Amino acid sequence: MPPKLGIIAGGGVLPRLLVDAARREQREVFVLAVKDHAAPETVADVEHVWVRLGAGGEALRALKSAGCQELVFAGGVKRPSLPELRPDWYTVKFLARASKVFFSGDDALLRAVRDEFAREGFVCIAPQDIISDLLVCAGPLGRHKPDEAAHQDIKRGIAVLQALAPLDVGQAVIVQQGLVLGIEAIEGTAALIKRSGDLKRAGAGGVLVKLSKTNQDQKIDLPTIGPDTIAQAKAAGLRGIAIEARRTLLLDLPRTLKEADDAGIFVFGIELAS
Amino acid sequence: MPPKLGIIAGGGVLPRLLVDAARREQREVFVLAVKDHAAPETVADVEHVWVRLGAGGEALRALKSAGCQELVFAGGVKRPSLPELRPDWYTVKFLARASKVFFSGDDALLRAVRDEFAREGFVCIAPQDIISDLLVCAGPLGRHKPDEAAHQDIKRGIAVLQALAPLDVGQAVIVQQGLVLGIEAIEGTAALIKRSGDLKRAGAGGVLVKLSKTNQDQKIDLPTIGPDTIAQAKAAGLRGIAIEARRTLLLDLPRTLKEADDAGIFVFGIELAS
Repeated sequence: MPPKLGIIAGGGVLPRLLVDAARREQREVFVLAVKDHAAPETVADVEHVWVRLGAGGEALRALKSAGCQELVFAGGVKRPSLPELRPDWYTVKFLARASKVFFSGDDALLRAVRDEFAREGFVCIAPQDIISDLLVCAGPLGRHKPDEAAHQDIKRGIAVLQALAPLDVGQAVIVQQGLVLGIEAIEGTAALIKRSGDLKRAGAGGVLVKLSKTNQDQKIDLPTIGPDTIAQAKAAGLRGIAIEARRTLLLDLPRTLKEADDAGIFVFGIELAS
Repeated sequence: MPPKLGIIAGGGVLPRLLVDAARREQREVFVLAVKDHAAPETVADVEHVWVRLGAGGEALRALKSAGCQELVFAGGVKRPSLPELRPDWYTVKFLARASKVFFSGDDALLRAVRDEFAREGFVCIAPQDIISDLLVCAGPLGRHKPDEAAHQDIKRGIAVLQALAPLDVGQAVIVQQGLVLGIEAIEGTAALIKRSGDLKRAGAGGVLVKLSKTNQDQKIDLPTIGPDTIAQAKAAGLRGIAIEARRTLLLDLPRTLKEADDAGIFVFGIELAS
């Protein structure tokens, strides 16, 4: 019997998918729901507490008193500024130790948070350890395939993201006919796709390329796509989506690929030389 | 007496500033106004023709029959897709020779266009050859100065832009407290600033960093700021603007700095080690 699972739940559907998957294995679950981020559906009918970002002490006490030993981080959390964070004393002490990372990229900060939980005796596992088919395979995933022009756009997108990765910035790009329409910083992929729809030139194309960053922690922060991504890509007139094989989470694979197929959009798993 | 000047005019106020500056030196001027881009004020009371992008043959004939020998490119032009361009025969032949650059970044394309005009016997000069005080100096330009935190943000912005420069993408970034809020691709600096205003975290900061790209042609495509940039930065709550010394055009310096001073915004000329 695996130990009780603590799910630290940000936004989106992934946290609930994890609740359901753990329960299918008869596993006990406790949700630490991040205020202003987690969806109400995530905690329906589940043992949980709501904790605001910045209340690190309260979060640890809740996880310990619930008897969790393994933790999984799931769902997006918008990074706050220091004034917005309103850190409690525990969090202040954490930030004092990790002050450098607070002012660097998300990867460094998330890694420090994870190390902090490990210090407190928790074992962090990844969403894909619980739902094994979350990870994307290599090659075309749906019915449509990238043509030669799309492969060129994917190649250019990879080059841009790889140039930015060492700086812990750059989640995704959109490329059309060799032209980089947009680069994602902190606005989120949905906002990038929407903006690029307006910037797209007449004519074919527009490929979303989304990679994990070099130092991105595979246990707590892999890039994620799902049915919403397909709907956004369709609305923006994109022809395809390329994500990194084995380092991207695909939420609700059958529905995502069905909607991509119907919209004429390819979904392609990139095999990066390592 | 300098030869008659041909001004190839895109959007914004710079083309008109060049008309006025040339006339102050009693120099003859002809404006080739790009349709859907140049402002009507640019050509008021000046010998000119309107030509659409893609009508390369017509443009060359107009410049030759007007007797221009020197050309200056000024003002922004939105890059079209091939279907939007509707190239004439001359332009088709140019594109056939330069097909590779059409699908790469702006710098390569602009350089090819400039080479094409040189092939036809024109000499290309730069806006700063006509208006000498257009180029930004190093250090603080207005009354306000970047503090240590702002200098850190400038440094991070430079690192991001320098990583992207070899790929001919990345005009500007906005950084707040070490966090890269936004990266400009083709949307334009105004759109970047606007978006970053919405993404800004509570608390101080937000610096626009804008550099010329490594291969950016200094004769035809330097980064430009002016009073509009200050107004946009103020609306977005930014604290400062850092641009590259001697490789950025500053339009209407007295008004730009007055408005920056009044808004509490610093304008800083970056001295890059070369």
